Amino acid sequence: MKNRIYLDYAATAPILPTARAKMLEVLDAQLGNPAALHTPGHFAQQYVEAARLEIARLLAADPTEIIFTSGGSESNNTVMQIFAGQKIAVSSVEHPSVLEAARARAGELRIIPVDREGLVQVEKIPSDVDLVSIMLANNELGNIEPIAEITQRLRQQNPHIRIHTDATQAFGKIPVKVDTLGVDYLTISAHKIGGPVGVGALYARNGAPFQSLILGGHQELKRRAGTVNACAIAGFGAAAQWCWKNWSCRRWAEVAKLRDLLARRIQAEVTHSSINSPREHCLPNILNVSFEAAEGESIQLYLDAAGVVVSTGSACAAGDTKPSHVLMATQGDPEVAHSSIRFSLGLDTAEAEIDQVMQVLPDIVKRLQGISTVKIRSHQ
Amino acid sequence: MKNRIYLDYAATAPILPTARAKMLEVLDAQLGNPAALHTPGHFAQQYVEAARLEIARLLAADPTEIIFTSGGSESNNTVMQIFAGQKIAVSSVEHPSVLEAARARAGELRIIPVDREGLVQVEKIPSDVDLVSIMLANNELGNIEPIAEITQRLRQQNPHIRIHTDATQAFGKIPVKVDTLGVDYLTISAHKIGGPVGVGALYARNGAPFQSLILGGHQELKRRAGTVNACAIAGFGAAAQWCWKNWSCRRWAEVAKLRDLLARRIQAEVTHSSINSPREHCLPNILNVSFEAAEGESIQLYLDAAGVVVSTGSACAAGDTKPSHVLMATQGDPEVAHSSIRFSLGLDTAEAEIDQVMQVLPDIVKRLQGISTVKIRSHQ
Repeated sequence: MKNRIYLDYAATAPILPTARAKMLEVLDAQLGNPAALHTPGHFAQQYVEAARLEIARLLAADPTEIIFTSGGSESNNTVMQIFAGQKIAVSSVEHPSVLEAARARAGELRIIPVDREGLVQVEKIPSDVDLVSIMLANNELGNIEPIAEITQRLRQQNPHIRIHTDATQAFGKIPVKVDTLGVDYLTISAHKIGGPVGVGALYARNGAPFQSLILGGHQELKRRAGTVNACAIAGFGAAAQWCWKNWSCRRWAEVAKLRDLLARRIQAEVTHSSINSPREHCLPNILNVSFEAAEGESIQLYLDAAGVVVSTGSACAAGDTKPSHVLMATQGDPEVAHSSIRFSLGLDTAEAEIDQVMQVLPDIVKRLQGISTVKIRSHQ
Repeated sequence: MKNRIYLDYAATAPILPTARAKMLEVLDAQLGNPAALHTPGHFAQQYVEAARLEIARLLAADPTEIIFTSGGSESNNTVMQIFAGQKIAVSSVEHPSVLEAARARAGELRIIPVDREGLVQVEKIPSDVDLVSIMLANNELGNIEPIAEITQRLRQQNPHIRIHTDATQAFGKIPVKVDTLGVDYLTISAHKIGGPVGVGALYARNGAPFQSLILGGHQELKRRAGTVNACAIAGFGAAAQWCWKNWSCRRWAEVAKLRDLLARRIQAEVTHSSINSPREHCLPNILNVSFEAAEGESIQLYLDAAGVVVSTGSACAAGDTKPSHVLMATQGDPEVAHSSIRFSLGLDTAEAEIDQVMQVLPDIVKRLQGISTVKIRSHQ
């Protein structure tokens, strides 16, 4: 999909050359099953353990606390399964894999409200529960939750409480250190940082309760059954190593500048637009915007036809006709939710691409607003 | 791991060139998230749907009945989760991902006994349960269960019964057609047929109860949340297509001849050996042998040092000191179980490789028997 302007990094990031090379290396080494006690198995397991060290280093965790899974959704579901039948509190803007799993597994579920920018109201987080799960950064809006502050406060109130954070979107964009955050469980995914799809990890603090979601073999210290995916895990490790070596606040600050430029130009050049992402406490690469009286999916399709790739809300909700639960929780207005677009940038995004988006976006929105039966309410 | 004699195909098969090529094609196309409604997402989804057609064709199933998962263990766990709290019957020689998940999820669990060759005693299968799960072919012994006969019998006795078969080992070696077998659920895995690790599928008959193990997004018709792994799934599809085009009973009969040659030579040339795999009703590529008073793991390690790659029992139980539950169920003797080796052949296995194995195996076993403190009981 070359020659397109790809602004959907939050859905999936293009694979890094180093991750691709490492995957090929493993694929072509014709290794064995990593669980087997023979040389080809050992070699496969060595790739897995090397990747585990890379992930552990990035998270400042102990390697034994890293469990490889098939991705963020499995990691999130695993945590909810551990607390099946117990009291769980989650924020209203969690990823569906937290929200739905919590709904299905919790004995008692409490939903923590958020403000208009998606930030949880810290004083409203209950501490008389077994598990609290609040994402580190939201996948639709980009808002960053004050997890370190939250965990400190909750542990003061209830020393037995367990805390999970879904760091899938935050990982690789802002520092994610398990002790700084003070969490017991943390979810990450490879393909959001340039690793392959189909692999993620769950950090589970030593001593925290654990129960495998996928039962069976002895893989991952009995915490995740199933043949260990050495090829994808090695790719994940390579992407993590790339982050370790190349990650810098400065580079992401450049991305944030482009994102802010896009925001300013949209506000100046596109009629009846409003920014849903917060100005502060936001990931550097996400910009969620609503265009009054223009349907998000239509904007997305017109942009796609013009070679610009964006999402409405999150990819995992695509095809659903319900408005985004995140925008409903923050804005409370189905029209705002239905008219939203998420732009998500990467380290490779260039200013010229922002220019190109702005060459087509205003006309697309104007045309859609012109044929809309929805009355424009704002006075812009 | 070239220049080795690889006889551990049942643990994982080397990736087929066509599967590798397809994976690279997807990786390099820089596609989007298959759930996204834009062109790169559509392209990714097209690869997924093409693979689904290949799998469905091989199983003679409807494509909507195929759900992609992260592998056989997840597929098996999903089925057990669907019947959580209900009455489940499984055979005593099931894969751990069936056995352990059934133990964890069933409201009431019944274990179906097997004979010395691993075959379930059909008249002992209870029909007054909600789910029966019996594997199509066993991963340690290779024995093929009479699933078609079982399903017919059970449905006559209880029209509401649901039946699952774990066809992970059988798939690609013997015909696996869902209607011939008469099952409601069927598990398969890509890496046992030359596809990538980290992807499998679950066949779930239209109308059969279903509940997702991994909850969240709308992927796979809401039956499996998580970003769809287009790259691995496309590789799985390519491997399935290869099977469709190249699979033949004749080719596998050639493999069976080599397996039988290996069995005959072991019986003739290795003292105090006994074949655990059945002579009939057995996959063409698996041979399980016990060597009295010689520890399986030691044999495996010496063979590995000599460049021959085999397993003791199954890879997923490796590292466990408990004797194989399959051999305990069939032979009932921990010494037999501890002294067993599984040879598993592939379509590429050559007669010269069997010769090379037989150049080293007799001496290895003899040496181990010589230093063993276990008394040899057989009169061979």
